[in-house]
Amino acid sequence: MKGLKESEKRGRPDIVHFALLEALGSPLNKEGLLRVFVHTINDHVISVNPEARLPKNYNRFVGLFEQLFQLGTIPPTGPVLLRLECQTLSQLLRETEPHYVMAFSTQGSPKTLEKAVSKLKVKERPAVIIGGFPHGDFSEATVKLADEVVCVDVEILEVWTLISRVIYEYECAISLPTRRLEK
Amino acid sequence: MKGLKESEKRGRPDIVHFALLEALGSPLNKEGLLRVFVHTINDHVISVNPEARLPKNYNRFVGLFEQLFQLGTIPPTGPVLLRLECQTLSQLLRETEPHYVMAFSTQGSPKTLEKAVSKLKVKERPAVIIGGFPHGDFSEATVKLADEVVCVDVEILEVWTLISRVIYEYECAISLPTRRLEK
Repeated sequence: MKGLKESEKRGRPDIVHFALLEALGSPLNKEGLLRVFVHTINDHVISVNPEARLPKNYNRFVGLFEQLFQLGTIPPTGPVLLRLECQTLSQLLRETEPHYVMAFSTQGSPKTLEKAVSKLKVKERPAVIIGGFPHGDFSEATVKLADEVVCVDVEILEVWTLISRVIYEYECAISLPTRRLEK
Repeated sequence: MKGLKESEKRGRPDIVHFALLEALGSPLNKEGLLRVFVHTINDHVISVNPEARLPKNYNRFVGLFEQLFQLGTIPPTGPVLLRLECQTLSQLLRETEPHYVMAFSTQGSPKTLEKAVSKLKVKERPAVIIGGFPHGDFSEATVKLADEVVCVDVEILEVWTLISRVIYEYECAISLPTRRLEK
């Protein structure tokens, strides 16, 4: 990957793997309140069915995604769990029509996650963009898609950690933990 | 593994892998405020140096842990990052001397994580026990080691998700996010 353009943003399926496991296993997702998309550097968008149960084993996960890039959908017939399309991030946002887009980056304005999420809470359809690459930062084009860019820690948090925290904080903001315990 | 006693608690290094990545990558750990131990079903305890940087790649992680079980320490010479010892959970707790031990289980008393952690916050050296196995619950002996067993969600949370949330909630309880942003 080293010779390719923006090589620092490539070749880490483990990041996508952990990140998706954190997102799909969350109570927010189990309540049907989360939609997850993976946008790749080559402008592929993977739509993930909230009911998809991904392999916990890394090697099986990689195998599954290789299959996805060959076939376009997983499974090839029946209800789709993973779908691959050619789409830019901008097209994806136009299609999903969020009312507010927040991106996370150490270049953003410093704000605790609690404060940032309290802003998302009052929006009807908020979207969050988290950079799933090991190094480097959002391109300028991506930054322009966001209404706000926020920095929640002085150091870069691992992608899966940030995703887990954003989701949990949002769950707290909408009192989901209490509501689920009262069920 | 199927034929072995308590087979539901065995053979999932991927759980330990994700869980350790969540713990070691947290701001709490970076501030030197977290100690992590892995207790195995065969009464091995792995002590993890807070400064250890574990491989993100699953296959490399498994290779490293195989080496640990052969050699006893990683690296074999110099400052120890991972140490393997024969120790029961009870012995480990006697050695680390926590002032309060909280275990998480769907069998525990229902309480939001925020409420549970507010109790940990006022203790000088709190310990948390999280069951890192795919199925089954704590043994009775383990439950007896805890001052309190708490259930934070109606469904079982993935181990790495629970660890991530406990750590984040504790960070919030001690105002770490704000303090780190003010640095």
